[in-house]
Amino acid sequence: MTRLWYGGDYNPEQWDPAVWKEDVDLMRRAGVNLVTVGVFSWSTLEPSPGQYNFTWLDQVLDQLYDGGVSVDLATPTASPPPWFSRLHPEALPVTADGVRLTHGSRDTYCACAPAYREAARGIARALAERYHDHPALAMWHVHNEYGTTCYCSLAAERFREWLQTRYGTLDRLNEAWTTAFWSQGYADWTDIEPPRKTQYLVNPTQYLDFRRFWSDELLAAYLEQKTELRTVSALPITTNFVFGGWVPVNHAQWAAEVDVVAIDHYPDRADVGAEEQTAFGADLARGWAGGKPWLLMEQSAGAVNTGRRLHAKEPGRMARHSLSHIARGSQGALFFQWRASRGGAEMFHPAMVPHAGPDSRMFREIVALGAELPRLAKVADSNVEAGVAILWDAECWWAMQGTHLPSSSLDYLAAVRSAHRRFWHAGITVDFATPAADLSSYRLVVVPSLYLISDEAAAALTAYVESGGQLVVGYFSGIVDPDLRIRYPGAFTELLGVRVEEFHPLPDDSEVVLSSGGRGRLWSEHVHAVSAEVVDRYAGGVLDGKPAITRRRVGAGTAWYVSTELDDAAAAQVFELSASLVETVRRRSGDTTWTFLFNHGDAEFAVPDAGELVVGELPVPAGGYAVVRST
Amino acid sequence: MTRLWYGGDYNPEQWDPAVWKEDVDLMRRAGVNLVTVGVFSWSTLEPSPGQYNFTWLDQVLDQLYDGGVSVDLATPTASPPPWFSRLHPEALPVTADGVRLTHGSRDTYCACAPAYREAARGIARALAERYHDHPALAMWHVHNEYGTTCYCSLAAERFREWLQTRYGTLDRLNEAWTTAFWSQGYADWTDIEPPRKTQYLVNPTQYLDFRRFWSDELLAAYLEQKTELRTVSALPITTNFVFGGWVPVNHAQWAAEVDVVAIDHYPDRADVGAEEQTAFGADLARGWAGGKPWLLMEQSAGAVNTGRRLHAKEPGRMARHSLSHIARGSQGALFFQWRASRGGAEMFHPAMVPHAGPDSRMFREIVALGAELPRLAKVADSNVEAGVAILWDAECWWAMQGTHLPSSSLDYLAAVRSAHRRFWHAGITVDFATPAADLSSYRLVVVPSLYLISDEAAAALTAYVESGGQLVVGYFSGIVDPDLRIRYPGAFTELLGVRVEEFHPLPDDSEVVLSSGGRGRLWSEHVHAVSAEVVDRYAGGVLDGKPAITRRRVGAGTAWYVSTELDDAAAAQVFELSASLVETVRRRSGDTTWTFLFNHGDAEFAVPDAGELVVGELPVPAGGYAVVRST
Amino acid sequence: MTRLWYGGDYNPEQWDPAVWKEDVDLMRRAGVNLVTVGVFSWSTLEPSPGQYNFTWLDQVLDQLYDGGVSVDLATPTASPPPWFSRLHPEALPVTADGVRLTHGSRDTYCACAPAYREAARGIARALAERYHDHPALAMWHVHNEYGTTCYCSLAAERFREWLQTRYGTLDRLNEAWTTAFWSQGYADWTDIEPPRKTQYLVNPTQYLDFRRFWSDELLAAYLEQKTELRTVSALPITTNFVFGGWVPVNHAQWAAEVDVVAIDHYPDRADVGAEEQTAFGADLARGWAGGKPWLLMEQSAGAVNTGRRLHAKEPGRMARHSLSHIARGSQGALFFQWRASRGGAEMFHPAMVPHAGPDSRMFREIVALGAELPRLAKVADSNVEAGVAILWDAECWWAMQGTHLPSSSLDYLAAVRSAHRRFWHAGITVDFATPAADLSSYRLVVVPSLYLISDEAAAALTAYVESGGQLVVGYFSGIVDPDLRIRYPGAFTELLGVRVEEFHPLPDDSEVVLSSGGRGRLWSEHVHAVSAEVVDRYAGGVLDGKPAITRRRVGAGTAWYVSTELDDAAAAQVFELSASLVETVRRRSGDTTWTFLFNHGDAEFAVPDAGELVVGELPVPAGGYAVVRST
Repeated sequence: MTRLWYGGDYNPEQWDPAVWKEDVDLMRRAGVNLVTVGVFSWSTLEPSPGQYNFTWLDQVLDQLYDGGVSVDLATPTASPPPWFSRLHPEALPVTADGVRLTHGSRDTYCACAPAYREAARGIARALAERYHDHPALAMWHVHNEYGTTCYCSLAAERFREWLQTRYGTLDRLNEAWTTAFWSQGYADWTDIEPPRKTQYLVNPTQYLDFRRFWSDELLAAYLEQKTELRTVSALPITTNFVFGGWVPVNHAQWAAEVDVVAIDHYPDRADVGAEEQTAFGADLARGWAGGKPWLLMEQSAGAVNTGRRLHAKEPGRMARHSLSHIARGSQGALFFQWRASRGGAEMFHPAMVPHAGPDSRMFREIVALGAELPRLAKVADSNVEAGVAILWDAECWWAMQGTHLPSSSLDYLAAVRSAHRRFWHAGITVDFATPAADLSSYRLVVVPSLYLISDEAAAALTAYVESGGQLVVGYFSGIVDPDLRIRYPGAFTELLGVRVEEFHPLPDDSEVVLSSGGRGRLWSEHVHAVSAEVVDRYAGGVLDGKPAITRRRVGAGTAWYVSTELDDAAAAQVFELSASLVETVRRRSGDTTWTFLFNHGDAEFAVPDAGELVVGELPVPAGGYAVVRST
Repeated sequence: MTRLWYGGDYNPEQWDPAVWKEDVDLMRRAGVNLVTVGVFSWSTLEPSPGQYNFTWLDQVLDQLYDGGVSVDLATPTASPPPWFSRLHPEALPVTADGVRLTHGSRDTYCACAPAYREAARGIARALAERYHDHPALAMWHVHNEYGTTCYCSLAAERFREWLQTRYGTLDRLNEAWTTAFWSQGYADWTDIEPPRKTQYLVNPTQYLDFRRFWSDELLAAYLEQKTELRTVSALPITTNFVFGGWVPVNHAQWAAEVDVVAIDHYPDRADVGAEEQTAFGADLARGWAGGKPWLLMEQSAGAVNTGRRLHAKEPGRMARHSLSHIARGSQGALFFQWRASRGGAEMFHPAMVPHAGPDSRMFREIVALGAELPRLAKVADSNVEAGVAILWDAECWWAMQGTHLPSSSLDYLAAVRSAHRRFWHAGITVDFATPAADLSSYRLVVVPSLYLISDEAAAALTAYVESGGQLVVGYFSGIVDPDLRIRYPGAFTELLGVRVEEFHPLPDDSEVVLSSGGRGRLWSEHVHAVSAEVVDRYAGGVLDGKPAITRRRVGAGTAWYVSTELDDAAAAQVFELSASLVETVRRRSGDTTWTFLFNHGDAEFAVPDAGELVVGELPVPAGGYAVVRST
Repeated sequence: MTRLWYGGDYNPEQWDPAVWKEDVDLMRRAGVNLVTVGVFSWSTLEPSPGQYNFTWLDQVLDQLYDGGVSVDLATPTASPPPWFSRLHPEALPVTADGVRLTHGSRDTYCACAPAYREAARGIARALAERYHDHPALAMWHVHNEYGTTCYCSLAAERFREWLQTRYGTLDRLNEAWTTAFWSQGYADWTDIEPPRKTQYLVNPTQYLDFRRFWSDELLAAYLEQKTELRTVSALPITTNFVFGGWVPVNHAQWAAEVDVVAIDHYPDRADVGAEEQTAFGADLARGWAGGKPWLLMEQSAGAVNTGRRLHAKEPGRMARHSLSHIARGSQGALFFQWRASRGGAEMFHPAMVPHAGPDSRMFREIVALGAELPRLAKVADSNVEAGVAILWDAECWWAMQGTHLPSSSLDYLAAVRSAHRRFWHAGITVDFATPAADLSSYRLVVVPSLYLISDEAAAALTAYVESGGQLVVGYFSGIVDPDLRIRYPGAFTELLGVRVEEFHPLPDDSEVVLSSGGRGRLWSEHVHAVSAEVVDRYAGGVLDGKPAITRRRVGAGTAWYVSTELDDAAAAQVFELSASLVETVRRRSGDTTWTFLFNHGDAEFAVPDAGELVVGELPVPAGGYAVVRST
């Protein structure tokens, strides 16, 4: 396929059919070619148990088809109708505090409840049977943003089954969970509960396993629906990934089960942080997709939601965000949602057609972007080029969300974002890779705070260095195995040639100075350079003169260790980065290279011999962008 | 009646009868002529179910009568006795989180529980029968500070009945609640629940309707008691209104059902804010009373409770607060409570007789004020004069307490207080009016952030302007109808001659500059001046050059729009306000005018030709007051 | 006994027996002579109900004995095994919000549950029977850190029984709780509940009594186990006290029931505050022990846990903390735990043998301290000398944790810590005493904010002054009796010769100035000097010219009153304190005096004629210590 998707979630059940006609007209005007329909339609499709109402949806799909708009048809299982909760109160979710939630929002179900799973398969089957051969159909969209957790007794049962599969015997579980501490030894599987509210600190491995369990359980729920759809349809099937600390989904693992990795992306910063986050989210999605194209399924058109307010995106910003996603591998730019709601909990959520209607700056920008994208159609088949990889591991993240760490300021996501941000500001494109990935194509691999690591992953990183790779390992890495058992002297000791004797976490408002003049914050360590060269040392304080940054030649490569959270200047020196006000991303297909240029500076940016301008302007104006094709 | 009430809550059951004698003596010394008795007496009056003990109350009322003190007899239904909760555990309230509360404080009941309602009627009837012809009786005081909410299943049943009455059909409810979004369509009334804790954002209309329902339900509970009392007594019946974000009571509506609007007023600021709040609370009460006299039923004698500490009121401050209420329409000044408690949760609550006893500054100030009030007796029949009105709508407040707004800094109460404060600092008396009120007598009407508005109210405001009124509408007004459905381009578009295309909420620490040099914070908007004159523009930033303040001549009047939260200087310019250190309020009856003067400055204030001094001093000393009568 | 204990908690069930051998070898190297075994061993000792596994413990005790290490054998009742919670779900604790906790941490049981109490006695009996004559045994350690609270119905029943014992009649309870306020009069014992979550403020006396009840109930649980142990063993029996705002244990009362007062002490400040807290905790323990030697049962070896991070203790700091405890009466220095855990919730808790193993600074410091302690062995029989006492009363603390006070900044613990800190910085050793203690040996007694006081305690303080004592009473003292009933004009009025008319709590960011130039914060009062001399006055503000500090000669002594929280300079003036950078503590036994010197300054400190150096260095280096013996 050589086209880029453009469109968004379309929830026509909110309006009279009269509006549908205007919608399709406006979609044509905007160049929309794909809409996601049905995400929240369960109570409209099945207003009472077993009584389906497809008429309206038939009509909507026909009209879209007539207007040349393809459909990504969603199963509505993220929002069961009110009657479902009344008939199956045991399927309402329970919090860690024991509160059983009430219907009245969305996502209010326990995915472990058999009644829910059966109902979800049922509505998926009904939709598949009715629409699998509708000519508008281009893709299936299972559910919405899998990510709920529940602590009810049904979830407890499933958790125990999962643990039996993982550990086989209680002896093995007791060892993995270190239950000899605090008298937690289990002698019967039925004694095990979810990590609900308890008197004091929870067992950290129990907590981590509950996350792992939920990722697998939600995946099973997804696969049940996928099976229903696949039975009657050969079209691509996906689900839209949502990213957040509360989401128990290992997206890198899930990626194997979706035909295209699809993500929702909502930055929460109003300043340049939104651009950093956009690049981060897009690079992460490409990493999950193993470098293959993926799809931006949702973003916000007119505003960044900072959590406290909707910050209106400045002119051109919506297009910059969209093109940044496409530059980094997205097969298109989709939005939530097409038309702003007239009421309900998200009535102020931005939309492609805002409350102000088509006569608005926002819709005009939507139309303008829609006119540009076809010129980039061929980009859809190309791959993004990156010489640097950063490691990302969801399990390590979850492990570091526990309450047991030596500093509550340790933050895996922040450490990874920080590493990514530095390359972004230097104009260098990076990939994300899992610890188990083949890293041989990268000149540099960065490993921020990889607290949890398996033997296999540690071996893979060693092999990478031995074959000539440059590896930079950050502080607090290699500390525990996948059971969260201490692996002193740590998984990287031999590779790095250092031994860490003691942790010296820093207060939030303090820093350490290095001999080079660089500065570190958040963390420091008493490091012994056993067989490593010392690159930089702590200067002053209790660690005065002790190694802070080390380097060791290993085979054809080099392994660095950085024992503190460096400030940007010090990190730039280590990574040999120079600041760039132009974000440059290259996608290549055969001999053709598309170069995406985003000018974040205040002055225009000239690009000599840039090749053929595809979209945007050359020289690139301040705040502008250009895509240039060269061969 | 031409007298002012003076006194407070009297809870004699806390002391031995020996103290009662001293109490009456001290009341006489203080000029007390009304006390509220019985507010918390249920467990004393009915120590076990159906067994009444009236002897002590007989004695108390007789002694008060003998001392010349009238009684406002309260039904004790805000605090059922412990045995009630044991016998009716289903009547204990449940929080939105599902926690059923335990007896042990006060107000711990669900007003929807039939057992509670029956018991409340029972004790009201018993009191009415026994005391309706007691000569001390002057007034009935139903309950105390109606304001509790409960989410239990009994409340759910009543809520469903209320919804059936409001909407008639589920189709109408589904439309009003926009249930097509998020698959919330109801096909059965029994599927509807209170807005309890749910997975994510609650439906905003469901939330608003739950507030409306509780206002009506509590009113019904009040009316049941009123009926019991009215059956045997013709005396005035009231209940004391409490104001707060947690209170689901629409006082403007309730006002029709009380014989006199009575309020409790507790400022929570230690600085001049306490004076601002006093004027605000008093003007609001007068607004609820439709301009007629009302009654300050509770205030605190010796201290302002800031929430963190009891700030001792400076000498004279208690009298200033009391007179400010009277200036603004109160028929008196009453306190909670007469004598400070010896123990219990409010043992440090200030009182007319503090722990230090009569030999104390506080009691001496109480005695001094009691000596002045009779000289103001005739004020009781007069009306307050105001040429400016500010709109207040409880439903709009509740609607803006939802979680769905474009900025969490939007705050209806703060916007209204801010408008009121500016007039107060300019020495100008304002009324509060509901959107439906007759506004024709005002030269200026101010409408802060009236997010929710009905068609009728919008039409009334238009008519006001057309007949020559000056109307100032603030940002984020006219956005939704009473169902919380978006009404783009907004209820005021035509009247104001502007179209708002886009919201630009501001970060809390930022501001916008206007061409005039004025500044705004919190909010800005992309405004098109369709048929309005531009008074001021945004200068700089993304809205540079766009209208910020507009004005449109409509018929004989003018309609202004202010699209940001102006700072005080800019607002003073718009409203042509000049700062005054003297708070002046006028009450008029026939040809007689009472002018209340409060000097908030540091120097004495001379009033030439002021008329006859009734209380206070002339010139008015710094921090002092004077009431002057003229004809 | 003339030796100091050295060692810590030893939880060998976390490792293979192979490690046990190394443990004993390392203990010998470190000079360890006592370890606490079994604190968290219940699920290992009794893996399923009634099936005991003692083999491993037999082996551990034998090996320790062979290595010359004595054992403090713990009953593991602070952490019941998972099967216990499954079999006795009614024994899982319930929070004030009604959440029943789930197994998965430690301390997750209700100490009122009969099943728990029976099981606890059972495992204690089994241990006693098996090990009472094991030659390694030196001491019994019941439970761990008694301190849990539960609000379940079983606790409610026990609470009611306790109240019946305390009050006898409901009339007496109703009076004590002031239930006449807010209609809380109880007519039936079964109406009384724990102070669970309720609608508004709880009854403060109910809250205080619930604390008192739990202290007594936990003590009863302790005594049941003590009885089981005493039946078969004459060895010392104790439990390790933990100190914290959440702990409902009156340690001064409990002290009568332990053979040696033992405490756990974990400072939470990284700066010199850790030293202040160490001295405070140690002095408090000595106070509980009535001046007799006591035992530091737990401290942290390598780091201070600030709540946000583990701050690595600087070189020498672990020894300084340990010696500070010994200086102040501890019979030794013990740690939690011997060897750092491999996993579990406290895997990063510091240990004597850290993850880095014996080749580490930390273990080397442990070995060095272990080598010094035998030289101090005779200190174990000596007593600490102090001429100043500060009053401490747990009930007053609990009473001031209520929600009813005139200022939420009133903080009993902070006031007491503040008083202690000032003497510590002046190098003066103080004792803590309960209000009922014999104070005749002290030249000065300080009484910070003793809000709650009994008649007996007030009389004892008066007698102290009359016999020649110097008494300094702080603000907000003597306000209520043990029922939390106001005792105006206060318990100290006559003794101090002052009458307090009104409280003037201060905002957190403000202060008052005194005539002397001193400053106060947090609190001020309108004081009348009835028969007292005025030492200092308020200057400026609403209290301008009124007494702030007073003094009254009474008999042979003097009684001071300080009506505000003085700053350090003003307090130093009142107490005639001069700052010292050397902490000096003296212990005496017969003619021998041991002087402990801790140099907190930046320069070395010479001590002329100091006597014989026992440990440390002379002159005392900056950051160092010395213990000197003289006769």
